[in-house]
Amino acid sequence: MPPQPDTTPADIAAAVVPELEAFLAERRELVASVGPTFVRAVAGLERFVLRGGKRIRPAFAWAGWLAGSGDPASRPARRACASLEFVQACALIHDDIIDASLTRRGFPTTHREFAAEHTERAWSGSSDRFGEAAGILLGDLALAWADDMYRGAGLEPERYARADGAWAAMRTEVLGGQYLDIVNEASGDTSAEAAERVVRFKTAGYTVERPLHVGAALAGAAPATVDALRAIGVDVGVAFQLRDDLLGAFGDPAVTGKPSGDDLRSGKRTPMLASALAAGGPAAERLRGLVGTDLADDGVEQARAALRETGAVAAAEERIAALTARATAAVAALDVPDSARAVLSALASQLADRRA
Amino acid sequence: MPPQPDTTPADIAAAVVPELEAFLAERRELVASVGPTFVRAVAGLERFVLRGGKRIRPAFAWAGWLAGSGDPASRPARRACASLEFVQACALIHDDIIDASLTRRGFPTTHREFAAEHTERAWSGSSDRFGEAAGILLGDLALAWADDMYRGAGLEPERYARADGAWAAMRTEVLGGQYLDIVNEASGDTSAEAAERVVRFKTAGYTVERPLHVGAALAGAAPATVDALRAIGVDVGVAFQLRDDLLGAFGDPAVTGKPSGDDLRSGKRTPMLASALAAGGPAAERLRGLVGTDLADDGVEQARAALRETGAVAAAEERIAALTARATAAVAALDVPDSARAVLSALASQLADRRA
Repeated sequence: MPPQPDTTPADIAAAVVPELEAFLAERRELVASVGPTFVRAVAGLERFVLRGGKRIRPAFAWAGWLAGSGDPASRPARRACASLEFVQACALIHDDIIDASLTRRGFPTTHREFAAEHTERAWSGSSDRFGEAAGILLGDLALAWADDMYRGAGLEPERYARADGAWAAMRTEVLGGQYLDIVNEASGDTSAEAAERVVRFKTAGYTVERPLHVGAALAGAAPATVDALRAIGVDVGVAFQLRDDLLGAFGDPAVTGKPSGDDLRSGKRTPMLASALAAGGPAAERLRGLVGTDLADDGVEQARAALRETGAVAAAEERIAALTARATAAVAALDVPDSARAVLSALASQLADRRA
Repeated sequence: MPPQPDTTPADIAAAVVPELEAFLAERRELVASVGPTFVRAVAGLERFVLRGGKRIRPAFAWAGWLAGSGDPASRPARRACASLEFVQACALIHDDIIDASLTRRGFPTTHREFAAEHTERAWSGSSDRFGEAAGILLGDLALAWADDMYRGAGLEPERYARADGAWAAMRTEVLGGQYLDIVNEASGDTSAEAAERVVRFKTAGYTVERPLHVGAALAGAAPATVDALRAIGVDVGVAFQLRDDLLGAFGDPAVTGKPSGDDLRSGKRTPMLASALAAGGPAAERLRGLVGTDLADDGVEQARAALRETGAVAAAEERIAALTARATAAVAALDVPDSARAVLSALASQLADRRA
């Protein structure tokens, strides 16, 4: 345990891993009782959660805990916040099946990893189907373990009771947002309203607002503080997704780790694309013919130029700046400990200004 | 609320539905906040859990509660027991995707229902992929809601703390058992050991032993009673699966609702089939050539005859009888309220002797 409370995003991210490792170690006996075949499968889930990503959701939950004047040295609170990584493991593993994604964080996706094992062992049946089945089951396990880790973190029962609504909303909303996303894709709904709703629930609510809400409710923050944090969370979360969308269209592949212009090729239904297409005029028409097709590098450049020409890129940058400014002002006005304000400010600007 | 405690399997099954309905009603506002598209999707999950099956898992959890001298009028305990139906909804919806099953309980499976909607609306992309994506997400929602309903049932915190291990084991073991099942199928492992392990975790542990364990732990049963209940649960659960396997090979389609001899056509890896194939001799060889192929009615009859000839059918019936006898004796010897004994006896014989 570090002697100082975790008040920078990097500190918080670093503190997540030992909590996940401790939980996984506690689960080893139960998993082993089912047999060595299951032990090997669970090792795949362990690798996935431990190599991890930015640990954004635990960081916001921890920020909420600090904002509610929660004890900065509380090991149970740290553990409860870290459990959000298991919710995220389920969301990513299942999303990657739904989107038929091949890689995640520079590694094969979980369903591809298990499909490859099926192929290597020359098992019978479809390797693809086996990989997806294994991914469905390991994602389920991650979701069940999220609850086990959260509930078993050792906080007082009245803290859990206060946070029950936020915990439930977080998990229901992300699944709802993801469902809206697949329906929008299938139905060809390219409206701004549809794209905004997915951003609201699949990203902003799940990634920032609800983690803040869970942490603050666990800490026992005053209702006015919880409301203020949630409003900040929505602003920061929407800005985060808008930045993600800009990086998906314009990001440097050397920094993002994703092929350049990937979102333009896939025609990802972002608010930015929706507003560009709705703008009308020749640039919007050119864009309509380009996005969602198998673009070569010059095609990507043409789509980018058209996107810029509609004004949608500048509008997205302006909106990110406005959302971040409003969130920053609201953070400054919060009646919370200085440590909480510092974490929140650092996280908000990190997410809005990042390049990957 | 009925004035009498629920002490027959039919009473218990009937009491599950209003608890599920109450929980679903409480979730309506949260679901509606995500939007009407999500409301329609969740209606699919509601139909699934409300038309329900035999409610076996809540019944055993309730039996465990009564065995631990839990209050027979406790509404929170009833609600906690009913929440197991959401775990089961996830297990079935996801299993049906994994097995590519078309029907469940006489209705299209969830992923087929959503695939059909995709087709009807003439949406773009693959209807099959859309259906599977929707099924993955709704199964996840059911799993998250199982925890929400269980934790929100309103039992005292110390009761939950006692049952945490059983609740965690139940969910981990069923996913582990299901994973072993898909690996056995892919690797062509037809050994009795492999089939027994799947029966142990995917069925016996998840369907009987752990529900009894959860209920008894919530009630605060003495450790010796919990151990005795778990041993009974394994016996009853294995007998339940062996009966299921017999019905899968010999059941009357008019009663089971499944095509006659379906398990023989699919070559389902049951302990009965494993022991028949391991028996050697001409009947085993004939059987090996028949199972797992697209059998017509006379082929099913030939496979049944070969299966009987190996002695595996008689052995399965004997084993069911022996397990049931041992469980019945153990129930009689339990130091528990008479109402608990009555429920346990009724459930055990219902499962072992059923025809569907």
